[in-house]
Amino acid sequence: MTDRTHLDALVARIRPPDEGARAACQAELDLKTKPRGSLGRLEQLAVQIAGLTGSAAPPQPDAAIVVAAGDHGVAAEGVSAYPAEVTAQMVANFAAGGAAINVLARQAGARLVVVDAGVAVPAGAPEVRALRFGAGTANIAAGPAMPESTALAAVLAGAALAAELVDEGIGLIGVGEMGIGNTTPTSALTAALLGTAAENVTGPGTGLDPAGVAHKVGVVRRALAANPAAAADPFSALASLGGFEIAVLTGVILGSATARVPVVLDGFITGAAALAAARLAPAAAAAMIAAHRSPEPGHGLILDDLGLEPLLDLRLRLGEGSGAALAIPLVRSALAVLHEMASFASAGVTDAGR
Amino acid sequence: MTDRTHLDALVARIRPPDEGARAACQAELDLKTKPRGSLGRLEQLAVQIAGLTGSAAPPQPDAAIVVAAGDHGVAAEGVSAYPAEVTAQMVANFAAGGAAINVLARQAGARLVVVDAGVAVPAGAPEVRALRFGAGTANIAAGPAMPESTALAAVLAGAALAAELVDEGIGLIGVGEMGIGNTTPTSALTAALLGTAAENVTGPGTGLDPAGVAHKVGVVRRALAANPAAAADPFSALASLGGFEIAVLTGVILGSATARVPVVLDGFITGAAALAAARLAPAAAAAMIAAHRSPEPGHGLILDDLGLEPLLDLRLRLGEGSGAALAIPLVRSALAVLHEMASFASAGVTDAGR
Repeated sequence: MTDRTHLDALVARIRPPDEGARAACQAELDLKTKPRGSLGRLEQLAVQIAGLTGSAAPPQPDAAIVVAAGDHGVAAEGVSAYPAEVTAQMVANFAAGGAAINVLARQAGARLVVVDAGVAVPAGAPEVRALRFGAGTANIAAGPAMPESTALAAVLAGAALAAELVDEGIGLIGVGEMGIGNTTPTSALTAALLGTAAENVTGPGTGLDPAGVAHKVGVVRRALAANPAAAADPFSALASLGGFEIAVLTGVILGSATARVPVVLDGFITGAAALAAARLAPAAAAAMIAAHRSPEPGHGLILDDLGLEPLLDLRLRLGEGSGAALAIPLVRSALAVLHEMASFASAGVTDAGR
Repeated sequence: MTDRTHLDALVARIRPPDEGARAACQAELDLKTKPRGSLGRLEQLAVQIAGLTGSAAPPQPDAAIVVAAGDHGVAAEGVSAYPAEVTAQMVANFAAGGAAINVLARQAGARLVVVDAGVAVPAGAPEVRALRFGAGTANIAAGPAMPESTALAAVLAGAALAAELVDEGIGLIGVGEMGIGNTTPTSALTAALLGTAAENVTGPGTGLDPAGVAHKVGVVRRALAANPAAAADPFSALASLGGFEIAVLTGVILGSATARVPVVLDGFITGAAALAAARLAPAAAAAMIAAHRSPEPGHGLILDDLGLEPLLDLRLRLGEGSGAALAIPLVRSALAVLHEMASFASAGVTDAGR
């Protein structure tokens, strides 16, 4: 068994939310010139970030979005509408600034960090951070995606990247991914971590028809059968059924939680990375913000398990961190309300106390 | 009967969407480096604005949010958790920059236009646009809120304000309101326009308990009984059951639609103004974007009637245009995707054609 000393040390540093800061934040919001609680989820967001950061009035953070890319041996099973070469093409598109996440990150005022976690063909572009753990995973329908030692290295690299971003002043991290075929390992990983059947967590991804989904369910079943160790232990599940980008993002999420920095999840794939993070460190869930609800059936089950309510439901099925980018302005608005609104007393407004 | 020549002329200028521009916009989106339709509601938004403006690639607009305030005679019936003096206090708070909508409009990069449509005590602040149609409406539980001639003047003033903003270069208009007690006229107006019972459209507003809601249902029933003309004609309904701010916003919405400028609705009250606008001019609905779903029961019925799907569901129950402000960045992102994303061909990405 892989020596998990470093991972255990990382996980042990994650602290529970500061209940005093949460209460102080809500008390501050209750003095603002609006009916109590009338900003709904926006107020809950501010309170969550207060508890996470330990500050009743957390400052407006600089944001970054980490998009990790990887290829998947299981793509050879014909589980995607797109050929595997598109992963590398899209990483080049990220580097050139032409993808949806480039546009949406700019709109959100967030720095974009593109990570090659193991694309078949290395990007080689200076805009892409190479944290490569292989040239695509092995086919999970036949055996483990990667050795546990590789998964451990990927998780620790992701955590180190989050720590580096926080050192550079980033206080809000969004996560996204790119990897042709990666809803298949995500479905398998989700089935293993939730203890549910393949058909409950397998959907059309970016464009399969019903026959394609039925075939994909069969591939997920084979992956679960070929990787019996996944049922026993969440880390083994991540290594045997995950992907390089998924493992790196699990690390980014754990690293964010360790640094008490909120992490904005995207859709199904980042959700599975978050689920793996929460299985390794349940306290990490307090750092998570669910950006949107993906139409993939497994995503709703993940959100329920993590106790997360998504901010958006726009039928996004792109990935790349697109939902995370769209949710970041809501996080900023939640904190702006806390900092910039007048109180009943300062504005001379009668408070009905509701 | 009031001479509605000017209103009829306004309504007659509203054109149906340009189907060619819609199709050209969707075709352009389908060339972008993402699976077809994978940006869900964001793509629909871009297509809607293309059809409305008649441009396949509508430019990124400057935005304004019009917040209209008014007082309501029916507040004397004890239908709000807040005293009526709060309307004027909040208008002063808008003028001073301390309210939620000030903060959220800044976050959205939108100009805020505060309108005193008939607050009991005039604001007198230079930051507030005085379009006053009285010092609060009459009590709708006893008779009409205002004469039809006043409602007509308020609608036309709202339409003129929209036209003025468009002349100044505004290409996206959000609407919001402030008026203690105004969910009661809104419930009555909604019941009359939808032909449904008071209890189906009456909720807690900003903070009534169940006994308060039951009392409010009784007041709405009395208002409907005291204003039988409301059932016969939508304009009569607006005059007899509406409010000065509601009538002005109906005009802003009609003026936006006339100018082919998208109008971002907020919650229940602006929804009723939009419903009145659509009853006067069914083609106006093509200009409307529903920002969020209010917890008020009548709002869902309005959205269904107008065929609108809200972008957000954050349990907001503040009003002021807060939801509209939060939705504006989504509109901007939809248009940014259209303008800034690379195509499959330009980025060298394989298109699977789905």
